[in-house]
Amino acid sequence: MREGDEALLMNTDDIRGFFASREQLDMADYLTLEYYVECVGDIETALAHFCSEQSTAQWRRVGHDEDFRPRFGAKVIGLQIEGELEQLSYPVQHSETGPIHACRVTIAHPHRNFGPKLPNLLTAVCGEGVFFTPGIPVVKLLDITFPEPYLNAFDGPKFGIEGIRDLLKAYDRPIFFGVVKPNIGLSPAHFAEIAMESWLGGLDIAKDDEMLADVEWSTLAERSRELGLARIRAEKETGEPKVYLANITDEVGSLKEQHDVAVRNGANALLINALPVGLSAVRMLAAYTKVPLIGHFPFIAAFSRMEKYGIHSRVMTKLQRLAGLDSIIMPGFGSRMMTPEEEVKENIAECLQDFGHIRRSLPVPGGSDSALTLETVYRKVGSVDFGFVPGRGIFGHPMGPKAGAASIRQAWDAIEKGVSLERYAEGHPELGAMVAGARRSH
Amino acid sequence: MREGDEALLMNTDDIRGFFASREQLDMADYLTLEYYVECVGDIETALAHFCSEQSTAQWRRVGHDEDFRPRFGAKVIGLQIEGELEQLSYPVQHSETGPIHACRVTIAHPHRNFGPKLPNLLTAVCGEGVFFTPGIPVVKLLDITFPEPYLNAFDGPKFGIEGIRDLLKAYDRPIFFGVVKPNIGLSPAHFAEIAMESWLGGLDIAKDDEMLADVEWSTLAERSRELGLARIRAEKETGEPKVYLANITDEVGSLKEQHDVAVRNGANALLINALPVGLSAVRMLAAYTKVPLIGHFPFIAAFSRMEKYGIHSRVMTKLQRLAGLDSIIMPGFGSRMMTPEEEVKENIAECLQDFGHIRRSLPVPGGSDSALTLETVYRKVGSVDFGFVPGRGIFGHPMGPKAGAASIRQAWDAIEKGVSLERYAEGHPELGAMVAGARRSH
Repeated sequence: MREGDEALLMNTDDIRGFFASREQLDMADYLTLEYYVECVGDIETALAHFCSEQSTAQWRRVGHDEDFRPRFGAKVIGLQIEGELEQLSYPVQHSETGPIHACRVTIAHPHRNFGPKLPNLLTAVCGEGVFFTPGIPVVKLLDITFPEPYLNAFDGPKFGIEGIRDLLKAYDRPIFFGVVKPNIGLSPAHFAEIAMESWLGGLDIAKDDEMLADVEWSTLAERSRELGLARIRAEKETGEPKVYLANITDEVGSLKEQHDVAVRNGANALLINALPVGLSAVRMLAAYTKVPLIGHFPFIAAFSRMEKYGIHSRVMTKLQRLAGLDSIIMPGFGSRMMTPEEEVKENIAECLQDFGHIRRSLPVPGGSDSALTLETVYRKVGSVDFGFVPGRGIFGHPMGPKAGAASIRQAWDAIEKGVSLERYAEGHPELGAMVAGARRSH
Repeated sequence: MREGDEALLMNTDDIRGFFASREQLDMADYLTLEYYVECVGDIETALAHFCSEQSTAQWRRVGHDEDFRPRFGAKVIGLQIEGELEQLSYPVQHSETGPIHACRVTIAHPHRNFGPKLPNLLTAVCGEGVFFTPGIPVVKLLDITFPEPYLNAFDGPKFGIEGIRDLLKAYDRPIFFGVVKPNIGLSPAHFAEIAMESWLGGLDIAKDDEMLADVEWSTLAERSRELGLARIRAEKETGEPKVYLANITDEVGSLKEQHDVAVRNGANALLINALPVGLSAVRMLAAYTKVPLIGHFPFIAAFSRMEKYGIHSRVMTKLQRLAGLDSIIMPGFGSRMMTPEEEVKENIAECLQDFGHIRRSLPVPGGSDSALTLETVYRKVGSVDFGFVPGRGIFGHPMGPKAGAASIRQAWDAIEKGVSLERYAEGHPELGAMVAGARRSH
C-alpha cells in the first residue's frame, strides 16, 4: 500500500540499500526477475522504489534503529539502459517528471517474503508493488528464474510428455488432438458420434472445446458417459489407445468432483482453463488428478500481447508447468494467432527445457491448423515433442471428421516419407480434399 | 480453437446470422457485453467472426442441415463506429488487411453456453475467442451487464457495507483502515504492538499488507493469535469494536483452513488477493466465511491499464462484488496510482450501485493516503460509504502509529466540523505534525 508523498523521498543511502551484486547474495534465497521498465526521472531512484514497493516498503519502525532491507528487500542486481525515449511507449497517467529511459532490470527477490505459493508469488512479482511504482508507469515482467530450493517445493506435472506418450503408446511423432466441432450446441450423443469418427480416422485425442464445460444441455456427466463408451469402442476397433479429453473447467470448489465424474465415466485426460480457474487451482487439481491434465490459454492474451507492458506469456507457460500441467495449449504460429514467432518458440522451450526436477510438459501450439499446416509447425518446433490441435481442420473437413482426422495422419506420413503433400494426396483422397480446398481459395 | 483459413470465409448469410436487435432476443437469456474493438478490413465480417469465435465457431455439422446460431450464437446488437484510424493503437501482428476502424460494439452472449460459473464466464467473454478473432487485433472488454436470472445464481457479499458497519458500530463516516508497516519483516509480537497503537489512536481496522500472508517468520497462526489478543485489549481500552484484517491469501486448497485458523484466533475480517487466488476461489471462500471478506487488487493493472486493450478494471470490480467480496480495495485517486479519476469513480460506483439482489461492497480507493488526502478522497467519492487505507501515512508518522491513526480521525473531525486542516491542527499535534511535514516538503 501507499503512503503520503513525503515518505517516498529517498536519500542516497536509502537507494543504495536496494542495489546489490549477485556475489553479495545467497542466490538460493532469491528468485531472479527480469523486467522491462520505462523510468521517469532518475533511474536509480525509480528502481530503488521498484524494489521497495515489491518488498519491504517501509523498512524500519519509527523510532527503532533497524533495517529490514538486507533480509527482506528486493534488490537490483543487473541493469541495462536501452535508451532514452521521447515519451512513454503507452500513455499512462503518472506523477513524476524528467527524462524517460527504457531499461531491462534484473531483480533478486527474496522468496522468504512469500514462500512457495503461487498466489503469493504472483502478488509479489506482478502485483501492486510492481505496477504502481512511482517513476515506473510502464513495466512488463519478462521472466522468472527459480532457485532449486524453491522449485523443490513443487511437484510439477504428474505425467508429463512421457506419461502422455505411454498412455497413447505413441512415440517418435507428434500427438494428434482434435477439438470436436461444432464446439457449442451438440448433444452428448452427437458429440460422441463425431468424436468416434475422428478416432477411427486416426486422431489420438478428441477434446472438448475450452468453452464447452458442464452445461444443462450437455452435462459433463452425460457427455463423459457417452464419450467414455465411444472411446472404448474406438480402441477396440482400431486396436490403438485413444483419449477423451474432458473439459472440467468449473468453479474451483467443484473441480475435484468434476474430475471424479469425468474419470469414472471414462475420460482419460482432463482439460482445464488455467487462468480462469487460477494457477493455484491447477496446482491443487494436479496433485489430485488420476489422469493427465492439459491446460488451455484463455485470459492470458489480455496481459501478454503488448510488447512493453504486462506479463510475458513465457512467464505464464513456466508457471503452468510449475503448477503441474502435463500439457499446455498455447497460441501457435502464423499471423492468425497474433503472436510473434519468437514468442511461440520461447513458450515451447519453456515446456521442454530443464527445470529442476520438474517434468516436461507437452507443448501444443494451436491456431489455424489442418493437414496443410502440420509440416510448418513441425519444422518450427524442431522436434516431434508437440501436440497438434486442429478444430474445423478436422471437423469441418468436407468429407466429414473421419476423413479430417485421416488427412492429418496422411500429412504426417508424407512428412515422414519426405514426400510433398501434393504428391502424397494422390491416392489419399482425404488429404487430397484439403489440398484441393487450399488450391481453390488461392 | 482455430481452423484452416479457408473455413473462415463467411458469406453474407453467414454474417447476418450474427447480427440481431435487442427486440428479437429474450434478453433474460443473454449477457450484454460492451467491447472497444479495432477492426481491420470489413467491419461486419470482423464482428461476425468476433461473435462466432466467442460462441459457436462452427455452427453446423458437415452434411447436416442445422444452424446452432439462433440458440447458441453471440450476436451484435449495437455498433458505434468511432472513426477510421491510420494504424492500430498498438502494434499487433495480424493477418488481415484493409482500413482500420475503431468501434464500440454491444454483444448479446447467451449464458446457456457456460452457465453461472466464473471461470467459464471469463473463458467466454475474455478468452481465446475474444482475443484471437481474425480482423480484431486490438480489443478491450469494457463492461458486462447481467440479466436477473443469471445474477440470481450468485449470493454476492455475505455482509456488505452494512455488515461491516454493524461489526464496527461505525455509521455516517468512512471506515478507517491502516496497513501495518513495515509490511514485511516484523515479528508477530512487534506487528501486534504496532497494530495496538494504531487501534488506540482511532483506527477501525488494522490490516496485513497484501504481500504479507503465512510465512515462516510470521505464520498466520502466530500472527493472528497475537493480533486477536491485541484486538480484544484494544476494544476494552477504547470501548469500541476493532477489526484485525488477516491476509489469508494462499494456495486455494488451503484457504478454508487458513480461514479457520485466523478466525479462531480472533481475526474478524479476512483479506484475499482476488486475482492471484482467482475469482472462483473468492466465491468459494465467500460462501464459507464467517467474517467479512475484503479483496485486494494485485494483478489487475496488468490487463486493465492500457486505454484500448485488455479488460476494463470496472469489469473486475463488478466480478469481485459478484464473487462475494464485502469490500474491495482498488487503486484510488491521484496520479500516484496511475488511474484516471473517471475510472476510479466508475469502480467506486460498481461497488455501490444497484446490482439485482447483490449486496453493496465497501469501496476502498487506496494510494498515497494520509490525513492530508482524506478530504479530497471524501469529496471525490461523494459519500461516507468508503474505506480509507493509509499505510506509511499512519505507520510512518513521525510521532508513531498511535499518533498516525489519531491524525486521520482528527482530519475527519475537521471535515465534519467544516474547519480547515491547518486550523484544526492547532491544538491537535498529531494532525499538526502531518500538516507541518507537508509544508516542509513544498
